[in-house]
Amino acid sequence: MEGIEPQAGILRLGHRPKRDKRITTHTALVARAFGASYYFLSEVCDMSVMDNVLSVEKRWGRGFKLVSCGLSYKDYISIWRNYMKGVIVHLTMYGLELEREIDGIKKAGKPVLIIIGSEKVPGEIYKIADFNISVGNQPHSEVAALAIFLDRLYNGQELYYKFEDAKVQIEPSASGKKVISI
Amino acid sequence: MEGIEPQAGILRLGHRPKRDKRITTHTALVARAFGASYYFLSEVCDMSVMDNVLSVEKRWGRGFKLVSCGLSYKDYISIWRNYMKGVIVHLTMYGLELEREIDGIKKAGKPVLIIIGSEKVPGEIYKIADFNISVGNQPHSEVAALAIFLDRLYNGQELYYKFEDAKVQIEPSASGKKVISI
Repeated sequence: MEGIEPQAGILRLGHRPKRDKRITTHTALVARAFGASYYFLSEVCDMSVMDNVLSVEKRWGRGFKLVSCGLSYKDYISIWRNYMKGVIVHLTMYGLELEREIDGIKKAGKPVLIIIGSEKVPGEIYKIADFNISVGNQPHSEVAALAIFLDRLYNGQELYYKFEDAKVQIEPSASGKKVISI
Repeated sequence: MEGIEPQAGILRLGHRPKRDKRITTHTALVARAFGASYYFLSEVCDMSVMDNVLSVEKRWGRGFKLVSCGLSYKDYISIWRNYMKGVIVHLTMYGLELEREIDGIKKAGKPVLIIIGSEKVPGEIYKIADFNISVGNQPHSEVAALAIFLDRLYNGQELYYKFEDAKVQIEPSASGKKVISI
């Protein structure tokens, strides 16, 4: 997973531990599998989400450089701007079309922080973001929006990354399950 | 949404109402937003999932030709084979790579039933499917796998479909929310 450009981070907003456990876990696993290096869960820590992600990392290999939870979204955004010198993308069904904006985001050549909300996103996020981007203008899923965004950012190459220090690896199969221990 | 080829249907397996409500709802909304015409939830009916989908259809426009729940997966597969004369694709992290198989699926020129499971998928699904396809060989999310599969099937055009009989429509915006009543 070394050398993937631009580096991407995910900032998950508005996680409610009871209701969002599985959706938030899916966003984290998609972030990892599709090449992101950072995952931030703001405002709360949900250890069952974190445990799940870390156990996948242990078995399937290291994808993330850093997973963090519990700071405010303002803190994570500020870290991204000041230390990563990155840009902020907010995925929202109300934003500008992905296909028209993705080249501009790539050309900026900077680390990309991708904000994904749950049902209620504070209005100021729309102002803070450098790009408000829609993956289609229909209601669907932040999991799908994140996957398609990363797919466009990495031109489909994210599906073929090799993860370091993996204990197991799949050998693609026409009709069964082949898992190799390595 | 008329005339999208090939027609696609989703068969969601193994839904557990308590645990999977939101993930299953996301799969249905992704199916609709990304151009599928049929959505089947096998073995159980979860009316909160169905209500959610139908209320989106009412407000944002008709995407599905048919939404159904409660039959066995064998019934849905048999309907697809016999009445739709379609092919069966099973999305699984153990399958053959999407990018290598998608042209073959398109060339078949037949309606595509896409099976997505939750944690446990009966072994015979691997045998019944004409194609076992992986969207990457890492653990992530059936929501993301479905989105990427439909995106490849429809070459990214699914993000621009217009839905019939919509009451509202979004005007893409750089920094706010613009919803038009129509």
